[in-house]
Amino acid sequence: MSDIIMSKSDKKWMELALEIAERGAGYVSPNPMVGCVIVSADGQKIGQGYHERYGQPHAERNAVDSVNNPELLKGATVYVTLEPCAHHGNTPPCCELLADLPISRVVIAMEDPTPKVAGKGIQYLRDHDITVDVGLMKEEAQQLNEFFLHYQTHNRPFVTLKIAQTLDGYIAAPDGDSEWISGPESRAFVHKWRSQYDAVMVGRNTALLDNPRLTVRHVEGRQPKRIVIDGPLDLPRDLNLFTDQYEEKTIVLTHNKEKFENEADPMLNMLQSDYFRGQTLLVDEKGGHTDLDEAMRELAHLPVTSILVEAGQNLASALLRQRLVDKVECFIAPKMLGGGTKSVMGVGINRMSEIMEFRDVQWRQVGNDLLFTGYL
Amino acid sequence: MSDIIMSKSDKKWMELALEIAERGAGYVSPNPMVGCVIVSADGQKIGQGYHERYGQPHAERNAVDSVNNPELLKGATVYVTLEPCAHHGNTPPCCELLADLPISRVVIAMEDPTPKVAGKGIQYLRDHDITVDVGLMKEEAQQLNEFFLHYQTHNRPFVTLKIAQTLDGYIAAPDGDSEWISGPESRAFVHKWRSQYDAVMVGRNTALLDNPRLTVRHVEGRQPKRIVIDGPLDLPRDLNLFTDQYEEKTIVLTHNKEKFENEADPMLNMLQSDYFRGQTLLVDEKGGHTDLDEAMRELAHLPVTSILVEAGQNLASALLRQRLVDKVECFIAPKMLGGGTKSVMGVGINRMSEIMEFRDVQWRQVGNDLLFTGYL
Repeated sequence: MSDIIMSKSDKKWMELALEIAERGAGYVSPNPMVGCVIVSADGQKIGQGYHERYGQPHAERNAVDSVNNPELLKGATVYVTLEPCAHHGNTPPCCELLADLPISRVVIAMEDPTPKVAGKGIQYLRDHDITVDVGLMKEEAQQLNEFFLHYQTHNRPFVTLKIAQTLDGYIAAPDGDSEWISGPESRAFVHKWRSQYDAVMVGRNTALLDNPRLTVRHVEGRQPKRIVIDGPLDLPRDLNLFTDQYEEKTIVLTHNKEKFENEADPMLNMLQSDYFRGQTLLVDEKGGHTDLDEAMRELAHLPVTSILVEAGQNLASALLRQRLVDKVECFIAPKMLGGGTKSVMGVGINRMSEIMEFRDVQWRQVGNDLLFTGYL
Repeated sequence: MSDIIMSKSDKKWMELALEIAERGAGYVSPNPMVGCVIVSADGQKIGQGYHERYGQPHAERNAVDSVNNPELLKGATVYVTLEPCAHHGNTPPCCELLADLPISRVVIAMEDPTPKVAGKGIQYLRDHDITVDVGLMKEEAQQLNEFFLHYQTHNRPFVTLKIAQTLDGYIAAPDGDSEWISGPESRAFVHKWRSQYDAVMVGRNTALLDNPRLTVRHVEGRQPKRIVIDGPLDLPRDLNLFTDQYEEKTIVLTHNKEKFENEADPMLNMLQSDYFRGQTLLVDEKGGHTDLDEAMRELAHLPVTSILVEAGQNLASALLRQRLVDKVECFIAPKMLGGGTKSVMGVGINRMSEIMEFRDVQWRQVGNDLLFTGYL
């Protein structure tokens, strides 16, 4: 909870700023989503804007540009969901933009932890005689940018494991079939998430057996990068991930150095009309498998700031075992299989005292299914 | 939904009748729970009662006896949650009791399907010039007496399987420990249920490994019968189920005919000061196990009309495999084990098309856990 006291109208405008910030979801990464609302001295909204796309203007710029009558900026309050930037990036620093206006107050939901900002934006505004209040709806602002904040803090992507299982924890029938355990409403959630995460990840088995597309359908939204862990680098070339219109968004992670070096030869690739237009990354091997810890670090460099893992049992359990999962989204269908493939098996726990407990748990009904959300 | 049209006050009084009926839960079996409210011609409640204990007066009798001024019965309406009985049992027929009163109307939630009643109570009242409306809050009344109705219809107990598992469907850690997966609020639910079901059932492994008491603690209520399936009839004599103060409420089911016949010898028992004061039932063997289908029929004769199964994986899966489970109550704790004992394994399903789908599903948060309720 914020320890600063704000008025009801302050809260209303910050809520609006958070709401419009979210429209940038999926488009602004690796930047944070930011929303900005400008309110005149007499309490009327005179401008609003959000960071729409990476490389394009920041929320503050868009909000200022949307003001029709600049006269009204005199004594106005600016609500912004993240501390205005203090450095020259693709755009000039927003703290300078705001300080040049005749506004009297800036309300900021949270500080930007990025070292280049980290309080400098706030200081700049205060140095220019603007009242700055920080912390209004801080939790909501942190929630909105959980991917960005995690990436800034840990230098690796925020990883969410998605599971769709029966009540008794099975993700596939004994004959291997895993289709349609959860209902259509749950699947729509997954497509929405795909449009919000930088990348979707699957393991070799899932790529091979299900031949998924991992694209956003059913809902509007940006197509994600698609990561497949293919240790031996020998998945068949005709899988959807390697042949469809989003081929360039596919990233293969392998630990087969020899094959990688052969296939990565640009001259050889040019000679082939059907060379793979996506990206292949080489990472170390660890115990016969692709080193997932290193994989995450490599992906962070691209940059990939957030990953939705739609893996089967092997990759899901491996990520949990290596404590690389930050959040679990688990759909539970009101059905029982009583056999088949368990969602998770083998994460190295032996005793109750080692059990993985989730934080900030939420249970929501989605169609006939139940959606569990929890943090690790 | 009922297709009869009732007034708002009709509904209010029937709701009250249903509410007081439930106070008999656990005490009236194998009778149904019944509640009765009497309302004077000018709309005042003048009496109420419920069936409190098996062998004691019915709800109608208690309600009539509670009326202080019999003058007010003239033109009154009687609300009763189940058709008044039409046969001489432990008490005289309630339809006669009501027909002898100067009341003008009886509102009944549902017909009694018992062959001895089955509309005869309603007919008797109508034959005595009393207006009878049937069907108000029928679904709620059926829900209230789901054990009784099932028992009447199928001649076997209503069986609820209780599961307490992690999100990923494990009921014990790899080292076998199963204690405290679910939270204290969930455990209070289980104790409440124990007081409402005729019996609680466990398998041999659970009796041996957990040495449970299966008693009602933490909440007020009647102690249930305790059924343990012990095929070879060789569980150690010092288990809680065989030695505590509720020893007489323990029922052992075995298929070891030889041992059963030895141990059941009343002369031999009398000679032993520590003979088992509970009950042992012999049922057939089927594929090396106690025949559960026959076990249910034997238990129905006692009579046991409802069973809460608090079993481990083996018995739970066997009951599901033989389609002997009517309802599942599954607590899901916000935790992951990623290994250990699965809640259910081996129910004979091989393909998605054979998946068990639940009806009338309910998801409720209980403390930090989620409680799933569904019918099979």
